[in-house]
Order: sequence, then structure tokens, then C-alpha cells
Amino acid sequence: MSKKIKRIGVITSGGDAPGMNAAIRAVVRACSYYHISCYGFYNGYNGLINGNFEELDARSVRNIINLGGTFLKSARSKEFRTKEGREKAYKVLKKEQVDGLILIGGDGTFTGGQIFSREYDIPVIGVPGTIDNDIYGTSHTIGYDTALNTVVEAIDKIRDTASSHDRLFFIEVMGRDAGFIALNTGIGAGAEEILIPEENLGLDRLLDSLEKSRRSGKNSSIVIVSEGDKIGKNVFQLADYVKENLPYYDAKVTVLGHIQRGGIPSCFDRVLASRMSVKAVELLLDGQKNVMVGLKDDDIITCPLDDVIHEKPKINKDLLRISEILST
Amino acid sequence: MSKKIKRIGVITSGGDAPGMNAAIRAVVRACSYYHISCYGFYNGYNGLINGNFEELDARSVRNIINLGGTFLKSARSKEFRTKEGREKAYKVLKKEQVDGLILIGGDGTFTGGQIFSREYDIPVIGVPGTIDNDIYGTSHTIGYDTALNTVVEAIDKIRDTASSHDRLFFIEVMGRDAGFIALNTGIGAGAEEILIPEENLGLDRLLDSLEKSRRSGKNSSIVIVSEGDKIGKNVFQLADYVKENLPYYDAKVTVLGHIQRGGIPSCFDRVLASRMSVKAVELLLDGQKNVMVGLKDDDIITCPLDDVIHEKPKINKDLLRISEILST
Amino acid sequence: MSKKIKRIGVITSGGDAPGMNAAIRAVVRACSYYHISCYGFYNGYNGLINGNFEELDARSVRNIINLGGTFLKSARSKEFRTKEGREKAYKVLKKEQVDGLILIGGDGTFTGGQIFSREYDIPVIGVPGTIDNDIYGTSHTIGYDTALNTVVEAIDKIRDTASSHDRLFFIEVMGRDAGFIALNTGIGAGAEEILIPEENLGLDRLLDSLEKSRRSGKNSSIVIVSEGDKIGKNVFQLADYVKENLPYYDAKVTVLGHIQRGGIPSCFDRVLASRMSVKAVELLLDGQKNVMVGLKDDDIITCPLDDVIHEKPKINKDLLRISEILST
Amino acid sequence: MSKKIKRIGVITSGGDAPGMNAAIRAVVRACSYYHISCYGFYNGYNGLINGNFEELDARSVRNIINLGGTFLKSARSKEFRTKEGREKAYKVLKKEQVDGLILIGGDGTFTGGQIFSREYDIPVIGVPGTIDNDIYGTSHTIGYDTALNTVVEAIDKIRDTASSHDRLFFIEVMGRDAGFIALNTGIGAGAEEILIPEENLGLDRLLDSLEKSRRSGKNSSIVIVSEGDKIGKNVFQLADYVKENLPYYDAKVTVLGHIQRGGIPSCFDRVLASRMSVKAVELLLDGQKNVMVGLKDDDIITCPLDDVIHEKPKINKDLLRISEILST
Repeated sequence: MSKKIKRIGVITSGGDAPGMNAAIRAVVRACSYYHISCYGFYNGYNGLINGNFEELDARSVRNIINLGGTFLKSARSKEFRTKEGREKAYKVLKKEQVDGLILIGGDGTFTGGQIFSREYDIPVIGVPGTIDNDIYGTSHTIGYDTALNTVVEAIDKIRDTASSHDRLFFIEVMGRDAGFIALNTGIGAGAEEILIPEENLGLDRLLDSLEKSRRSGKNSSIVIVSEGDKIGKNVFQLADYVKENLPYYDAKVTVLGHIQRGGIPSCFDRVLASRMSVKAVELLLDGQKNVMVGLKDDDIITCPLDDVIHEKPKINKDLLRISEILST
Repeated sequence: MSKKIKRIGVITSGGDAPGMNAAIRAVVRACSYYHISCYGFYNGYNGLINGNFEELDARSVRNIINLGGTFLKSARSKEFRTKEGREKAYKVLKKEQVDGLILIGGDGTFTGGQIFSREYDIPVIGVPGTIDNDIYGTSHTIGYDTALNTVVEAIDKIRDTASSHDRLFFIEVMGRDAGFIALNTGIGAGAEEILIPEENLGLDRLLDSLEKSRRSGKNSSIVIVSEGDKIGKNVFQLADYVKENLPYYDAKVTVLGHIQRGGIPSCFDRVLASRMSVKAVELLLDGQKNVMVGLKDDDIITCPLDDVIHEKPKINKDLLRISEILST
Repeated sequence: MSKKIKRIGVITSGGDAPGMNAAIRAVVRACSYYHISCYGFYNGYNGLINGNFEELDARSVRNIINLGGTFLKSARSKEFRTKEGREKAYKVLKKEQVDGLILIGGDGTFTGGQIFSREYDIPVIGVPGTIDNDIYGTSHTIGYDTALNTVVEAIDKIRDTASSHDRLFFIEVMGRDAGFIALNTGIGAGAEEILIPEENLGLDRLLDSLEKSRRSGKNSSIVIVSEGDKIGKNVFQLADYVKENLPYYDAKVTVLGHIQRGGIPSCFDRVLASRMSVKAVELLLDGQKNVMVGLKDDDIITCPLDDVIHEKPKINKDLLRISEILST
Repeated sequence: MSKKIKRIGVITSGGDAPGMNAAIRAVVRACSYYHISCYGFYNGYNGLINGNFEELDARSVRNIINLGGTFLKSARSKEFRTKEGREKAYKVLKKEQVDGLILIGGDGTFTGGQIFSREYDIPVIGVPGTIDNDIYGTSHTIGYDTALNTVVEAIDKIRDTASSHDRLFFIEVMGRDAGFIALNTGIGAGAEEILIPEENLGLDRLLDSLEKSRRSGKNSSIVIVSEGDKIGKNVFQLADYVKENLPYYDAKVTVLGHIQRGGIPSCFDRVLASRMSVKAVELLLDGQKNVMVGLKDDDIITCPLDDVIHEKPKINKDLLRISEILST
């Protein structure tokens, strides 16, 4: 039987994502609602190791639901990957009488949390927060929807210039291992081609498609390239390759970069962060552990951290088909 | 056996919604992809009746995916409710050899389409487009996600003033019959109270909640009120009632109004509109009729128009509970 | 000879405006740069009266340059209008050894400050912060540029619906005494008519213009109405009047309200607030008093508070002419 | 005596800028108001050479005031730099009876226009449109204000991540020859350092400043680098240099690129474009030629194209001082 939870800790870890503040707020407000104490640890696992924390109450989190980033800050902790690091963290939690942890972050965060939890029997609950949406066990991660909007707004701006100057733009978006962002923003921004890590269309296919596009009367084109695309060339090499082979194209490159991680969270991300985080607190109170909360259809579900860590979410390949139809 | 489709018509009808242009674009591009002809009729059913249309090809719909409103324009047609009106529309379709219709709109649009289809054996496919999300058979309607973002951005602005002046704001959002917008934006904007048509919390409960909020140290508060809230008072009467009973509150009212219908569609709405509309064309080609396309989890599904018209979608009442926890 | 300034106080007072936080930040950073102490008083003059303040250093104001509202909060103080109130304020300043005041606000704020300064020989410097731009001695007030953008973005959204439904919209914008917002946003949003307090075009002229507009093939129209328009009818009465006289118009009303006061400040407002506030600190250090900083062309200038209080800025009437030409 | 103007031509040329559509609209509407004909030529000077144009009336330019880019498209024409090219252009204008030209663009555009005008006695009027603000004779160019907002919004997003991860970001903004964008967005976004083409602060100064910033308790920092900064290193080399010398900084690079050219124009740019373009038409009607319209304080002024071409506008160096004070 699990012991009664009187105090929980919360961290944000890994890459920051819009909605993380909304998630912390919901953790804190739920603790307040259920009359338990909440400690916010700074800089991800480093805060656990160094005892860098603050007690948070309902008023500590006012007016942050709409702020990007995370006020608890985030970090990737090398020390937590060592046995010594985790032991330090455990001693801090024991000394401070923290009975459970809520981990807001991604894959790496959950892997560390799972190991820690098994070593020291601290219940942990994962809340998926990353713009990449590359986490098994949930249809959406916190920050993903906002990033999609940030990217399409940026491409809308670039399309103004593409159309005005009859240019071809290669735009690199985030997603080292997963094409979620590329695929959805490619359709959302009306891109002519989308290159993702999950599928190698080949360079010939790209040239064919751009030629066809030109013949059909399109003078400007957008190609979205996921950071980790399969074609084996980076976005600059791709542009050069196309310029060599289709010299009538005036090809330009934009790497969207870190603007994709920040920004005011969308309503969807705020509601998602709020629902998931309240549920995470309730799960701890309920004696559960080592699961991640997720979204499926309109319900908040749970998934064992073991599955989350070992499985990969799949992109919806039907979107590739849709993209082809729409770029007719 | 259904006859082969060679030409389809498309209309937008009822209140306009962001993403309708993306939907029209996807209908047109899908027709082009499948080598069939596409006529866009203007002003909803009125365009059918008056033969006011234009043939649309892939190039006609370039650079519109990011525009709010609908370039085919929309209207509520009184004439189409009459037998004479529908007969005129049928004659136009017959003369122009239009074999099927795609109707982008809401409840009223589908009701008219269903009657018309039965009278004249014209296959129709519905695509749900309305900001209110009040349509059975889909988790999301086109335009709803954008409207949520528009509303939370507006409330974020109002909260700046609420916080700076320690004020209470009553904000009326759209939703005459359904609390979807109020509920989600209330949580997303961190409102203290949310009043929706589906649930009567009562005026005493509202006063209690505001008093508690004040005692807990909150000096500014936001109350979201759905147009059609159950409490039986409009937003101005509510504010007056609170000022009378809790005179320490400096209560103000904002009616967000028509800004909620417009704006640049979110990525979600553009992708949703694109997927649904491609599917709608494919359904017609496939010999189907009198169904609406919908979203469920991450799949495009179909639902008989009969069910769409006669059932009401349900709000997720768990959100009310979440809202109460978060306004602690 | 003025005594040496070692500590200054800063308040925000009157209606809040985007950029006020940027202004406070610049005051605080300039104090830090010049090695003097800075006290931020809360709730405008009420904070002076009640001794409600906090010492602010360079780190207290990090990450606020982009936030709307004012973290020092604002208020209109009735007590400061009384001799007793001002005496209390003076005692607080004396006790806390505050040698000068920076007042971020509008007309009312400066009037109070001027009286106070004369009664107690405290040097005050005004920084014009209000969205209405109705202050003599500066071409732009802090918050005005942001409000213009907020309003045109809102009207862009409404125009989506106006165009889609062939409607006429009456949109009320802020500006009780001055038509700056109405005039500029009317041109910026492509309005057909603009009604401002400075000019009575008359109802006949409005009807003529709308009729002409209709005949010229425009089906949708936007009329911008300043809160304080001269025509003697509020925006709802105007819409009713037009519906009666030009029944083919489907006229709707939107009152933009408090969304105009909030929001993320534009780059212009952040730079303006920064430049003005640094200058305000330097003026105090320089022994100056009872002036307001202002913008003229690209220079920060000063203007005696006496003139600021007694003069009215003038709108640029050429804009009315431009508006007429553009709505051809 | 100049001959009576009955038809004018308008082009957009050089890099596109937000507000160019608003400028074209105002040219067209002013022509309509003054009962003269207006031809829009496509692709800058290439449209003149190839006779690629369209007659534009008041209705042709509806609903474009808020669109980025330019619907007349833009290009840099090599052929127009040759005598043969300009002769072709002249023949087109003569054949089509175009009596004067309005050139919306930048330096290069005006240089070509000036030569052409002298060779063939065609009156030309320049309207300054470029995001870089690097044109003599006006305080603001069309598109500049919008670009400032686009850049600070992007940096706001990046700052979310910088703060969350205690990182140093080098952000490259546009401005090959002029630091206007860097300087204003650096102040507007609260950057710690700003590197511009007009001023070489030196690498030592940069390291000193970053070290001081670190010691003062700042953990995250933003450095804005103009494309054409004087320090002689590109933004990636700068980041490497700092990482080598200040290894405690986790330095990242973002090149904002083409998102800066596009986007919905700000209210300021729409009004500026409208006023300047109406004036340009009126100048032609008034018999004037070879001048550019400009903004000074709140007035539309004119400046001989000769001066525009040969002089350089100066940045306000006081902004560098302000930036230093604010990054305390």
C-alpha cells in the first residue's frame, strides 16, 4: 500500500515548450485544492540534486498561464545520469519530505525518472511537454499545437516574399526524429513538398514534383524540410542541388530555429497542460506511479512509463497523401 | 447504383468561420487531382438558386489557405427553405450538370441540404464549419480552434487591465446553445468563473465564488459568460447584480462580438479543413451521400446527416471540475 | 540650486497602457546606471499616500519589457485630490528620503503632480502613458501605437465576416475626447467612414456616403466610431438610424472595449518608453522639474507641465481628407 | 509647362515590404478619386519592358490593405539597367499613353527611375518601400515598422528559451548597410548587446560586456547582430568566438531571415503607405517630378530623387547610449 502523499515536487526538464508554465500552475493549484504542499525544483533534475527549490502556493503561479518558457527553468542534467547524482537527489527529497514527483518533459526526462523511481521507490508521474510531439502514449504533447501555429505564421510571412518574387523557399523546421511538425505545417501552410525523417521520397521525386509544379503555372513554391529528413542532405545542400538541376528556380533557405520553442501558448496547449497536470496530481494522491498522462480523443488517459520510453509514436501517413493531393 | 460524378458544386453557408477558405481550396484541389470539374456557388444556397457561380481550378485557390472568411461568401437563404427556391436550385444544377454538392457550414446548412437531397436525389456531403463547435458527429468543427485562440488572446489583453486596476471583468463570448467556447477559453485564460448554457450554477454560487476569490487574495477576476448562459441574465445585468451585492468589486463588461468569427486560421483548422474536404470529394466519387465528415481522435470519419441534424454534441463536464480546481 | 538626487520614486497612474512596464524598467535601469536608488510605489498616488512601495533594482525588472499592463498597478486616486491626501504623500516621501518623482500616466496624473510639486517643492517629471494619444507636448504617447495595431487587427477579423456576409459594421473604438485612434485605425483598416469628436459630419453625410459606397459596388462596409463622436448618437443608435434609412444594409455593431488597453507592446512603444524614461531620470539628476518628456520627430524633448495640462493636441485633419479619397 | 496627366503607371520594385499592397491601393484609389486612369505593371521594371500590366480600378484593390507582399510582384530588373531595356519600357509607356510613373521601392529602384526619367522626360515620383529604413529623405520607409514588430516578436519567443535554459543567443537581423532594425529591436527586445554596421565596438568590448552581464546576475542574454555588422565576423563565428573565450556561456545562433520581409502590415505602415501614395498621385497631377515622398514628424514632405540617391540616412546614435544604460 502506498503511503499518504503530503508533499509533492515538480520539475520541468528537457527542451522548454509553450504551456509548461500552464502545467506548473495547474500542478500547484491542484495541490492547493487538495491541501497538499508543492515544491517547485529549479533547472530540472539539477534542482533535485542541489536542493534548489521553492514552496509554491496558489498565488505564486498567478498571471503565468499565458507565458512561454518555464519559470522553474529547464536543463538536461548529466549528473542525474550517474548513480551519485540520483542518490543526492533522493537525499534532498527525503530530507524535505517530498513524497512524489511530477515530471514535465520528454523522453529523456521520463527515462531518468523511471530509473530513479525504481532505485528509490519514489512515485513519479510524467506529463508530456515538448514541441516535437514525439512521445508515445498521447496524441498531443504540451507545446506542439503552439509550435504548429508559430511555424505556419512564419511560413505565411515567407510566402509573401516567395509570391512577390516568384521564388522557391526551403524552410527547415524542428523534428530530428519525427515529422509531426513538418507534416502538419506543410499542409497548413500549403507547401508544395514536405520532407520528413520517416519517409525517403528521394531527390528525383523532389525534382519531378518541382518541375511539375512549375509547369502547372506555380511560380513560387515552399518546401518544408524536417531537421532530421531522410534524404541525407541538409537544407542548404538541398537548395544547392535544386538550383543546379532546376536553374530557373531562385532558391532560398530559411532555418526557423529557436523561435519554434517559445511564444504564448495556444488555447489548446493551455487547456491540455491544465487537464494533464491536474490529473497527474490526482494520480499521485490515488497511489499510482510510473505512468505518464496522455490525451486520447477528448480524454486524459494514462500510459506506463515503460511503454512511453520504449515505443515510438507514428505519424499519420495519410497526411502525406493529402499533401500530395493539395499541391496539385 | 449511383451515377458517375463529373462535376461537383461547393458552397459555404451559415456563419462564416476561419478555415472555410482552406476547405474550399481543398475541395477544388481534390477535384483537380481526380480530374473532375468544380463549380463554386456564391452566397450559400442563394448562389444555387440564382445560378451565381464560377468554375474553379487549382490556380483559382492559390494563396487563400491563410485567409479568414470565405471568398465564396456566405448567407442564410430564406428562399431555399421554400419548395420553389429548392426547385430553382435543382434546375440550375441540372442545367449546369452538377452531379453532387459539398456543403460547408453548420446545422441549418445541413438541414436544408438533407431536404434538398431527398427531394431531388442529389448527393450531398457536409463539411462542418462553424466556430461554435455545436455539431454532432465530429469532435471539432472548422474554425473552432481559431476562435478559441482569438478569445484567449483577447482575454489576455483584458487581464492586463484587470490586474493593473484590480478589477472584475465579465466577458461575453459566442455560444448561444453550447458552452464549448466559454469552457475552453475560460480554462485557457485562467478565468475564475465560467457560465455556460448547459449548466445553471445560480447567482448565489457566483457571489460565493467571487467572495472566496477575494478573500484568497485575488484582486482581479475574470468571469466568462456564454451568450446563451442559463442564469437568465445578460452580461450587463450580471455585472450590475455583482456590483450591488459585492460593492468592493469594480466590475466591467466586454462583449467580444464578431472578432471571434474572423482571423487567420490556426494550423489545426487549416489541416482539419484540408483533410475533411479532400475526404468529402472522395466520398462523392465513391458514391456516398447524405453524410457529414467529422474528426474522431486523429481519423476522418463520417456520420449520417440525419444523426447530425437530430443529435446535440455534449460538452465535457470534467472541464467544469478542472476550472473549479484551477481557480483555487 | 536644486539638491542632489539620491533616491527617486516612480508611479504609474490613470488608465494602464502597453509599454508602461517597459517605462518602469527603463526608469529602474537608468537609476541603477547612475547609482541612485529607486522606489516603485503601487497603485498610483495611493501608494504614495499609504507608503505602499518596494525598492527596485536592475534585476527586479527583468523579463517585463514585453508585458502589457503595469506591475506597479495603476489607479485613479480620489484622496490625492484632497490637501490631506497630498500631505500624507509628502510625509511618506520625506520619511523615505525620496527626492523626486517620475509620473507615468496622462492628463489627470500630471495635473495632480503639478499641484503636489508646487505645494511641497518635490520635483516631478511626467512620462506620457495612455493609449488615447490625447496629450499635448508629444507626437506619441506610450501605448498608442500598440492600441492602433490591436484595433486594426480586430477590424481585420471583423472585415472577414463583413465581406463574407455583405454586411455593414459599426465599430466603436476608444477616444472620448480625441479622434486619434479612430482616424488612424479607420485609414489603416480601410474603413468607409470615420466619426470623431473633433468633427461633426452630420447624419445626412453618413447616409450619403453609405449610399454612394453601395452604388459603387461595395457590398460590405466598416464605419469607425470614436466613443466621443460629435454626431450625438451612440454606436447602437447610429446603426439603428442607418438600418431605418438604408434598409438594404444588414448593420451590426461591435464595441471593441478593453481589449484596446492591453496587449504586448509594439517595438515602437517599447523604444519610446525606454527613451522617454531614461531621459526622465536624467532630467531629475540634472535638476529639472515639472516638465513632461515628449517625442518630436525622432528627438526626446521636454514641455512644461503647465502647457501639457492646459493645451490640447490637435489631430491631423489631412487624415480625414485621405480617408475620403481612399474610400472612393 | 508639364502636360496634363491622364494615365499613370505604378510598379513595386526591389525587396518586397509589408505595406506595399496598401501603397498600391492608395495610388489606385487616388487615381479613381481624381478621375485618371491607373495601370499596374507587374514584376517591377520588367513589367514596363514587357508591357505586362493591368488597368486597375477602385474595386481591383479591395481587401488587400492588410496583406503582406505585393500583388503586382517585385523584381530586380537587369534589363532596365541597359539602354535597350529602358528604350523598350519607354515605347510601352508611349504606346499605352502612360503620362507618369509611381515607383514603390528603395534606392536601386529610384536610381533606375531617375536615369529613365531624364532620358525620356517621363515624370516619376518615388514612394520609399523597404523594411531596412535605409533611405535618405524620410524618417520611416514603408514596411520598417512592421519588420520591427516581427523581429521583437521573434526575439520574445527566443527569450523564452534563453531564460528557461540560461543561454546566450546571437540573433542575426536584416540590415546589410544600416543598423536601424538592429538598434531599435535590440532596445525593444531588451538585448544585452547590439552590433551594427555603423559602429565597431570590437570583440573585447563584447566579451567585457557579456562578462559584466554574467557577474551582475544575468544568466541569459541576447545579442542582436546586424547582417552587415562592422566587427568582421558573421554571427556563427561570433558565437564560436564567445564560446571559446567565455566557456560558461551556452551560445546559440538564430538567423531570422526572410520572415522579416513579410507579414501583415502594422497600422503605422498602412497609414504611412496610404498617405505617401495619395501624395505621390497628387504630385504628378501637380506637375512635379523626380522627387520622393517622405515622412518628417507628422507631415508628408518631398525630397529630390538626386538627394535620395546620393545621401545616406543616419542612425540615431543616442540609441546606442540608451541600449547601454538599459542593459545595466
